[in-house]
Amino acid sequence: MGTDSGHKVTFLPANTSISVADGSSLIKTARKMGLHINASCGGAGVCGKCRIIVEEGSVEGGNSEKISPKDFDKGYRQACTATVNGNVTVRIPEESSRQKGGLNIEFPKRHHARMHIFDIKNLKKEGIFYPPVEKLRLELPPPGSHDNRADITRLIQGLSDQHNKHRMVTGLTVMRKIRKTLREKDFTVTATLELPVNNRAKSHILNIQAGRWDHRNFGLAFDIGTTTVYGVLIDLNNGKILAKESCYNPQMSYGEDVIARIIYAEKPKGLDMMHDLVTNAMNRIIDTMLGSANTEHGTIGRDEINSVTISGNTTMTHLLLQLEPDNIRRSPYVPVSTFFPPIRAEDISLNLPHHCVALLYPSISSYVGGDIVAGVMGSGMYRTDKLTLFIDVGTNAEIVIGNREWLACAACSAGPAFEGGGITHGMRAVEGAVSDFSMNPDSLEPMNTTIGDKAPLGICGSGLLILVATLLENNVLNPSGKFNASDNPRIREGRSGMEYVIAWQNECAADHDIVINEVDIDNFIRAKAAIFAGVMTLLEQVGLQVSDLEQIILAGGFGSFIDLDSAMSVGLLPEVDPDKVLYVGNGSLMGAWMSELSNHIRKDVVEVVRKMTSFELSEVPDFKDQYVAAIFLPHTDLSLFANTGKRKDSI
Amino acid sequence: MGTDSGHKVTFLPANTSISVADGSSLIKTARKMGLHINASCGGAGVCGKCRIIVEEGSVEGGNSEKISPKDFDKGYRQACTATVNGNVTVRIPEESSRQKGGLNIEFPKRHHARMHIFDIKNLKKEGIFYPPVEKLRLELPPPGSHDNRADITRLIQGLSDQHNKHRMVTGLTVMRKIRKTLREKDFTVTATLELPVNNRAKSHILNIQAGRWDHRNFGLAFDIGTTTVYGVLIDLNNGKILAKESCYNPQMSYGEDVIARIIYAEKPKGLDMMHDLVTNAMNRIIDTMLGSANTEHGTIGRDEINSVTISGNTTMTHLLLQLEPDNIRRSPYVPVSTFFPPIRAEDISLNLPHHCVALLYPSISSYVGGDIVAGVMGSGMYRTDKLTLFIDVGTNAEIVIGNREWLACAACSAGPAFEGGGITHGMRAVEGAVSDFSMNPDSLEPMNTTIGDKAPLGICGSGLLILVATLLENNVLNPSGKFNASDNPRIREGRSGMEYVIAWQNECAADHDIVINEVDIDNFIRAKAAIFAGVMTLLEQVGLQVSDLEQIILAGGFGSFIDLDSAMSVGLLPEVDPDKVLYVGNGSLMGAWMSELSNHIRKDVVEVVRKMTSFELSEVPDFKDQYVAAIFLPHTDLSLFANTGKRKDSI
Repeated sequence: MGTDSGHKVTFLPANTSISVADGSSLIKTARKMGLHINASCGGAGVCGKCRIIVEEGSVEGGNSEKISPKDFDKGYRQACTATVNGNVTVRIPEESSRQKGGLNIEFPKRHHARMHIFDIKNLKKEGIFYPPVEKLRLELPPPGSHDNRADITRLIQGLSDQHNKHRMVTGLTVMRKIRKTLREKDFTVTATLELPVNNRAKSHILNIQAGRWDHRNFGLAFDIGTTTVYGVLIDLNNGKILAKESCYNPQMSYGEDVIARIIYAEKPKGLDMMHDLVTNAMNRIIDTMLGSANTEHGTIGRDEINSVTISGNTTMTHLLLQLEPDNIRRSPYVPVSTFFPPIRAEDISLNLPHHCVALLYPSISSYVGGDIVAGVMGSGMYRTDKLTLFIDVGTNAEIVIGNREWLACAACSAGPAFEGGGITHGMRAVEGAVSDFSMNPDSLEPMNTTIGDKAPLGICGSGLLILVATLLENNVLNPSGKFNASDNPRIREGRSGMEYVIAWQNECAADHDIVINEVDIDNFIRAKAAIFAGVMTLLEQVGLQVSDLEQIILAGGFGSFIDLDSAMSVGLLPEVDPDKVLYVGNGSLMGAWMSELSNHIRKDVVEVVRKMTSFELSEVPDFKDQYVAAIFLPHTDLSLFANTGKRKDSI
Repeated sequence: MGTDSGHKVTFLPANTSISVADGSSLIKTARKMGLHINASCGGAGVCGKCRIIVEEGSVEGGNSEKISPKDFDKGYRQACTATVNGNVTVRIPEESSRQKGGLNIEFPKRHHARMHIFDIKNLKKEGIFYPPVEKLRLELPPPGSHDNRADITRLIQGLSDQHNKHRMVTGLTVMRKIRKTLREKDFTVTATLELPVNNRAKSHILNIQAGRWDHRNFGLAFDIGTTTVYGVLIDLNNGKILAKESCYNPQMSYGEDVIARIIYAEKPKGLDMMHDLVTNAMNRIIDTMLGSANTEHGTIGRDEINSVTISGNTTMTHLLLQLEPDNIRRSPYVPVSTFFPPIRAEDISLNLPHHCVALLYPSISSYVGGDIVAGVMGSGMYRTDKLTLFIDVGTNAEIVIGNREWLACAACSAGPAFEGGGITHGMRAVEGAVSDFSMNPDSLEPMNTTIGDKAPLGICGSGLLILVATLLENNVLNPSGKFNASDNPRIREGRSGMEYVIAWQNECAADHDIVINEVDIDNFIRAKAAIFAGVMTLLEQVGLQVSDLEQIILAGGFGSFIDLDSAMSVGLLPEVDPDKVLYVGNGSLMGAWMSELSNHIRKDVVEVVRKMTSFELSEVPDFKDQYVAAIFLPHTDLSLFANTGKRKDSI
């Protein structure tokens, strides 16, 4: 039976059904339906709390020592380790659920943002699919007694005559090889051109090859994240991605955030070290991609890579280019440069051919970097008529508001809460991180879901958001972020005030109970308040209100998992119709990739940067007031979250 | 007594006087007056033939073992070793002269071309004194809470605000140092800009220095000759030459002419070797100049050199840039390139700072090189209204005809005769080379003058020209280049036909008699015929005649010594009024130097190259006819040399 065959799963007592693929996890299917099943251990099969009863049909697995042979015969299974292998009817017994009153669907379904997918076809349709580096084949007339033009002149004239390409320049490298190259295949050659963004500027002849090679033109796009480096290998003739690869940014060992990296870079040889770390990582990614990629014409040689587009935040870009980042972290936050001319990839230690061009995304300011500009490009925000809020949440949250006509941006320091930092048991979004959560409001029993269905290790950013929202919705937490006293054993006095136990030590992979306490909640609130205040201040600066927003675009790692309802109910995101929220994934990589495919977009980038107005929030007096007003769940001004109030009332 | 005090020297029996400086050589003074004194040994005092008698006053020196004490007392001296130290009357006795009939002035005075001297004041007067590299001082506002522009943006904005400079780009080098540099002297900095030739193109910010350095801007100009490399160090703020230096092109050891160099360059590692040889020579010249140059502000640092302009023929330029010259020597004579983008000086192994720009003069074709283009620029030919013939005589003679409106050029292979090659006792124009000559038509006794007044070693190009012209004028040689039989011991049958003995072995520094024979004469005739045929063919191609020429410009080493009357009487140069002949010396170096001082001229170079029409003489059918007609002294068509005929008759 194929994995794409649908199986009908019916849950009782809710009596609600869904069709899922063969092999789907039973507990995740329940989650999908908005049905709570107690589960402390995040799907690891340890806590034994997620017992369900198979009433009709059967499931695969779900047995454990927590289920007696007698119960097994009765149809008891652990939902977290059982998978669907046919039509089945499953009952969630009272002890595993949060049944209460007449409500069957007990907690809201997750509203994730619609995924925006970049489609190369659109570029082609619009006629703007022309990469910054082009390969052109020429059949040149050989020299003769009445035609003894210089080799370079012959090449340039050929480009003009045969391809209508004008205004060419070249350098010593091509000059030094052209004589042999022209004559190797009887004056049939392929030229590699770097096209300018500006039509009046000159094109550079980067390379020349003997024979026909215009069908082979490859490029790279890189996103240099503070945490992760992503690369893609692209066939520039058709836009196809031939390989993808990523790895942790090895600078991580010298500090998790950009400030720590800058401090390290200020040490003797520190900047060179930071540069070497990231370029080594990029070179490893290049090696891996070259090793794995294949075309119909065979493997790809390193010297066939003609260009690389790179985006990253301002600090990452500085470290990559070995520009001193010192003043990025010091008021008034002055970067060395926000725009970067095309350079040679080898000049920044990339193991790429001499002729390969490296194109760096421009930044706006010290804290609105090339990654955000790339996101604005990749998401298409710069071309939409809709008034759009673009937001990339990380340690620093970058906010852009605008549309095709105008753009305004600001950055605010949210702290590391959304990346799992500064939270007692916070962690990055890796295996074992609690990423989804619901609770039985009576027993306060959790339904944890972890990344990779492992025993919980901690809480990641998206899990924290849902956790706080759920605690708030269930009145376990009050709007000030304090726990309401309870005699439930999961609520207790801890070392940092009251705390809620998410998973007991024996149910989790940590050597302690996993908890969230009031200090964590406070950190969370400050983080979300900073972001929300940033949005409100920026809106105010441009004379608009939340109600004017027609679209929200989420970018960055955090955005991919974010539960929109939770984000609005805690007051992180302004309240809008979830259908108006779009997720672009790694907008930075997408922007780099698009620029690698379209010189038209590279031209637009210049325009976007030119028209982007940057606000320094610390210089806007109103920002502090907005921040104070936002240190509340969801906000002191509840009129901003009218629907959230309603939803909560309805539970 | 100062050397500039004039002494009156009167020669008898001619009874002609001249005022010369203290210390002037007596034999050269006679030469200046057109008076012949027998002298085989070139002024070395060996042959003892140049005896004169001091009748009134006295001279310094002039004694030797060839003069008996008795004769000495009578006033006999050797003219070649005697110098003027007061007013003096000297008689040239019959045995030392060529007195014949009533003529006192026996051979024509030498007509050398007027020297064209480049004057920096003219550039300033015309408002085109602005070097391609400029230094500008900026007092930038420091960053503040309301002004946190990036460092690079601040610099570029400052250039716009304070110096009205726009359209700037820069590279990693400046970016990597700007942060510290701006802050070192409180945001007072000096930027070094490379200005484009085209106003619409961008300027490059090459360098940035903390503090005020706009008063220090230095550049170099180089002429890379096949034989000699010349360099000058220039203060770009006022145009002054601070140092000059030259040395033999060390590639000489691998072949005297460009063809031999190309053949060497085709060997494995040969091109790299040729490159290394010339750049090592350039680096030594740079070292020497930096060591000797001084300004009012002290010595000049290597890193203060911001640009270098280089001219050379097409082969020299190829070898310098490591471009394969192979096809320059093979029909149809295709160079790799005739124009060269601005490059970094360090990219061609010059020991100059990273930011230093190297600007290469463009060529026209394989045999009309950047040296000729530079000569056209340096001589001002491209700006004159006069129809001008520009001619650079060497192994290859390059010919340019035209004016400000149009230009046509061609090259012809003259062979090495004019550089002393291919002539039995030919040599380069160094010490001991016979460089001037006259003869007693009866005794055929020569008056040799050598470079450095040394005993003769051989004959250099300019000496050969005068020698042939003199032999012809005295009917020792007939128009076909054959010696008229004579029973004089200086005319004899040698191994290569008849020959004339210029200096006997015991009078010269060679271990044999120095002679010129009919094969030498034939080589000379073929060389001059090729050049003259080139001029005629080029004139014909543009529909003009010799009589249309309003000016002749001579360039190159040969041109500096050339006797114009001799050049016309043998049919090397077309017959024009000698006053219309200008000598520009090293036009190539002058052009490089001018370009180094004026970006306006660099722009004009592009225009000059664009409008220069190049003719390949071997492809013009008429050239061969012209050549055949010219293998005669002076020419088969004597109407072209009407005045020469007259002059000869008058002797």
